[in-house]
Amino acid sequence: MTEPAIVLGPNQYGKAEVRVVKVTRDDARHEIEDLSVTSQLRGDFAGAHLEGDNSHVVATDTQKNTVFAFARAGIGSPEAFLLRLADHFTSSFDWVTGGRWEAESYAWQRIQAHGAPHDHSFVRSGQETRTALVVAEGADRHVIAGLKGLTVLKTTQSGFEGFPRDRYTTLQETGDRILATDVAARWRYSDAALDYDALYDRVRGLLLEAFTEGYSAALQATLFDMGARVLEELPEIAEIRLSMPNKHHFVVDLSPFGLDNPNEVFYAADRPYGLIEAAVTREGLAPAPAAWEGIGGFC
Amino acid sequence: MTEPAIVLGPNQYGKAEVRVVKVTRDDARHEIEDLSVTSQLRGDFAGAHLEGDNSHVVATDTQKNTVFAFARAGIGSPEAFLLRLADHFTSSFDWVTGGRWEAESYAWQRIQAHGAPHDHSFVRSGQETRTALVVAEGADRHVIAGLKGLTVLKTTQSGFEGFPRDRYTTLQETGDRILATDVAARWRYSDAALDYDALYDRVRGLLLEAFTEGYSAALQATLFDMGARVLEELPEIAEIRLSMPNKHHFVVDLSPFGLDNPNEVFYAADRPYGLIEAAVTREGLAPAPAAWEGIGGFC
Amino acid sequence: MTEPAIVLGPNQYGKAEVRVVKVTRDDARHEIEDLSVTSQLRGDFAGAHLEGDNSHVVATDTQKNTVFAFARAGIGSPEAFLLRLADHFTSSFDWVTGGRWEAESYAWQRIQAHGAPHDHSFVRSGQETRTALVVAEGADRHVIAGLKGLTVLKTTQSGFEGFPRDRYTTLQETGDRILATDVAARWRYSDAALDYDALYDRVRGLLLEAFTEGYSAALQATLFDMGARVLEELPEIAEIRLSMPNKHHFVVDLSPFGLDNPNEVFYAADRPYGLIEAAVTREGLAPAPAAWEGIGGFC
Amino acid sequence: MTEPAIVLGPNQYGKAEVRVVKVTRDDARHEIEDLSVTSQLRGDFAGAHLEGDNSHVVATDTQKNTVFAFARAGIGSPEAFLLRLADHFTSSFDWVTGGRWEAESYAWQRIQAHGAPHDHSFVRSGQETRTALVVAEGADRHVIAGLKGLTVLKTTQSGFEGFPRDRYTTLQETGDRILATDVAARWRYSDAALDYDALYDRVRGLLLEAFTEGYSAALQATLFDMGARVLEELPEIAEIRLSMPNKHHFVVDLSPFGLDNPNEVFYAADRPYGLIEAAVTREGLAPAPAAWEGIGGFC
Repeated sequence: MTEPAIVLGPNQYGKAEVRVVKVTRDDARHEIEDLSVTSQLRGDFAGAHLEGDNSHVVATDTQKNTVFAFARAGIGSPEAFLLRLADHFTSSFDWVTGGRWEAESYAWQRIQAHGAPHDHSFVRSGQETRTALVVAEGADRHVIAGLKGLTVLKTTQSGFEGFPRDRYTTLQETGDRILATDVAARWRYSDAALDYDALYDRVRGLLLEAFTEGYSAALQATLFDMGARVLEELPEIAEIRLSMPNKHHFVVDLSPFGLDNPNEVFYAADRPYGLIEAAVTREGLAPAPAAWEGIGGFC
Repeated sequence: MTEPAIVLGPNQYGKAEVRVVKVTRDDARHEIEDLSVTSQLRGDFAGAHLEGDNSHVVATDTQKNTVFAFARAGIGSPEAFLLRLADHFTSSFDWVTGGRWEAESYAWQRIQAHGAPHDHSFVRSGQETRTALVVAEGADRHVIAGLKGLTVLKTTQSGFEGFPRDRYTTLQETGDRILATDVAARWRYSDAALDYDALYDRVRGLLLEAFTEGYSAALQATLFDMGARVLEELPEIAEIRLSMPNKHHFVVDLSPFGLDNPNEVFYAADRPYGLIEAAVTREGLAPAPAAWEGIGGFC
Repeated sequence: MTEPAIVLGPNQYGKAEVRVVKVTRDDARHEIEDLSVTSQLRGDFAGAHLEGDNSHVVATDTQKNTVFAFARAGIGSPEAFLLRLADHFTSSFDWVTGGRWEAESYAWQRIQAHGAPHDHSFVRSGQETRTALVVAEGADRHVIAGLKGLTVLKTTQSGFEGFPRDRYTTLQETGDRILATDVAARWRYSDAALDYDALYDRVRGLLLEAFTEGYSAALQATLFDMGARVLEELPEIAEIRLSMPNKHHFVVDLSPFGLDNPNEVFYAADRPYGLIEAAVTREGLAPAPAAWEGIGGFC
Repeated sequence: MTEPAIVLGPNQYGKAEVRVVKVTRDDARHEIEDLSVTSQLRGDFAGAHLEGDNSHVVATDTQKNTVFAFARAGIGSPEAFLLRLADHFTSSFDWVTGGRWEAESYAWQRIQAHGAPHDHSFVRSGQETRTALVVAEGADRHVIAGLKGLTVLKTTQSGFEGFPRDRYTTLQETGDRILATDVAARWRYSDAALDYDALYDRVRGLLLEAFTEGYSAALQATLFDMGARVLEELPEIAEIRLSMPNKHHFVVDLSPFGLDNPNEVFYAADRPYGLIEAAVTREGLAPAPAAWEGIGGFC
């Protein structure tokens, strides 16, 4: 019996982390857009892998150049920019049947100087990073927006009780603790040609607002409420995935020093940490595995 | 017409990055094992997300405790340790139908002192990190081993020619360049109960050896050769995925300074970088999407 | 001739990066303070180094406990908190003659929910990190405040011309470029018992405002102007040091693609980068080497 | 009374992290050198800071070009390379009276392929980074070599007892614990024109060997022994500074699970950590503050 042949499986390649800064200087009041773009092509690249034939290999350097050239006409929303790149590569090269275009974008705000926002001076703002992802499969386009590194904390109205106990359980129940997490979220749009910038702001605001509300019985409940709030308010979004570490804040035992500690002094631990991940979706929605498969873990 | 209901989709949770160090001190010559373990459970956790009912939520703290308790009897290979954790959680709690257990392990070697390897003093060795992943779905177990951060470079026998040119192409062809990459690889075992430690060493050696051989027409070709070599030599491995950045080393133009530069002085760039990713598999092999879905990107 | 004896030189030790979070919950509107504190003692520790005698070694664990215990009564400004720690350790142990206490502090703002700032829910804000340092030498106290990671950029009104040219010079002159940097600053207070929080806000505002003004002939000129502005406005500050990378933004040559690029599309490079460092001080000011010696580089 | 004038204090500037890779390809067996070099000039740069006069500002781009041009003739030891750069800049420009040149160097070893070390294929080796620093002040040259990130651990022969107890002390004494640290060291050479590569290997070996020996009563004692060993064996070294975190490994309490734990299962904590820093020097040695002032903290 012969062994089955060794063959090429799924593959993609491109240029990663092209940092492009676009300044719009039509008048004295400049605008700035700041993105890190990754372009990866999918299609028929067997020759390059198996035979040393590069005739299909659109150079990663060419992909980088294309990002810069396309930025000349302006970026607009990251999602719209990635869609233009996707259309360009899939339409320009017969053997490119799809791909994956991803961006991080960084927020800047005008420096307040002498009481007014400055025309051409900016300071990096915000702690979180906005993300965007376009996956192309033939004529299909999946658009996933997201954010990461949005660090939030509530000092009360959170607990964890009623969990099962086995021989390895030592955790005490509590009805009042700090709840802290770094929100990472990705949401998939069901429609095309949306106002992605406005929607991003809306989602960010809804996630924050839902985080503040009510009593959190567990981070799982808060995560679901945050995701559900977004879907309730925004029909353009088909589903959302969230990955949220439980950043433990332990109450320090000050009794050896003759002090009480009514949930006032905490030690913020780094590792290990809880990690809660879930998708919130709509009943009957067809899954879109191709949209998500290029994403690490949940987000 | 009513909107479809908002529902919980796929989810998992647990404790991440539990750093456990196990010392075996049966005699004067100690042994050390050093792992960072992540445990995530899957199953029926709807109550916690939707109703604030934690009766199914095996605390992440309990998962952490279990890692430490299981380490008391020794770790052995990371894969074997994760398999024991998977069996424990899926058999101990009815509603836990599967999960994902992951580990990084860090290598130590004995310090050479006065001409001999020391009994109980160690130095961290190796630049790469060994990874292990076990995915459980009911009774099924997927075992994926890997490594990341294995940085290799060849100073010649690499080029990139014959690629297509369009209006955005400025890259020159070259038949002699530096090829450098950080190998990240994940391979899936088809059998159970293997000698995972010995296999890891074999795979690492084969990847390195294949990297050295022949002329590289593109990083794609080298990646495929590396993956194919592993599959050729090790029938226990069903498939392998590789993610390899092309870490560009640009020849510095020294001519303004009256100097030649026959591929001797290079500038090592950070970003952007090429990124080449592919699976190498066996013809007719049934895909195992459940094994891979919890992995970011290709590796 | 005998070799000179080998002896202990300057030394310090303590606990680093104690992350303490203090919640003030006197009423429904909670306040939060979030610091990472490092405590290091100086004094007579020769016994521990030379003879294995730990009778002077105030355990680093004890230093950590002290940080948490002192936080019970509230933190206030980081500088004031570090001064209390300095006084405690130098007064409690005869052989502790001084030390170094350092903090990073992290800013939080209330989440805006339903149109109002929330009582007990917060989001991490700001990109920069506030720093504080107290150095004690006997009864003397040096207080140095600072910030790092304040990323600013101006899209015009910056150039670099008139620099000397030698055989290794290839850089072209320019009268219009992007100027971008991550401001790291440390300033030393000449007085004690100041309103450190208010002064921090003032310094941050002045640094930003001075950055926006006028034409920058070189990052050196901008750095000096920023430092001088702080000293002009705030007599409580004796001197200021700044360390500012020149984060190069290169104009992309789009001419191969038939496009112009009138300073609109830039490539933001990571490495190498310029690095400009200087102190701005007051004429005749006595140097304070003891204050600065524990600081890496300039800042 | 007028305020004292605001003036420029100490300053330096240059190009940071120039990553230069030099391949020597005189025959089929290639050699590789891999450095990240930072060049900073000191001297008369008041014009640039105060008057926008760049006529003294040797461009940081020129400094970068010089690094590459000088690498054309080979690098040799990092220290020798930095000394050549120092001589070049101080002799080429009247107003450059000194400066600071620093390098990190990265180790590569030949890949073992088919039983032999390969001619032109390499793998990054070693976990630690070698450092070098040259400070020039007029004709004086200070040469400081070092390493960082050398992670070592001993599983026994370490304890901490006999320390003072106050009201904030809760730590228990122990006569058997894990001792783990990341060694960062800088040593200053008293002679010039040494075999820096051979000396580096000797120092690294001596540090490791001294770490293994005897019972450690505290990390302070081990640190001193390591430094003293280097000075005893190597008269070319005037003094050495060490900065060593105490990377705590806590014995996990397994008794709630019915298990003993005779120092076998440990939790490796990240933060906070002890931090022990000291200089080991020779009696009567004149201090060299200029050599050390550009170094952050102790190392």
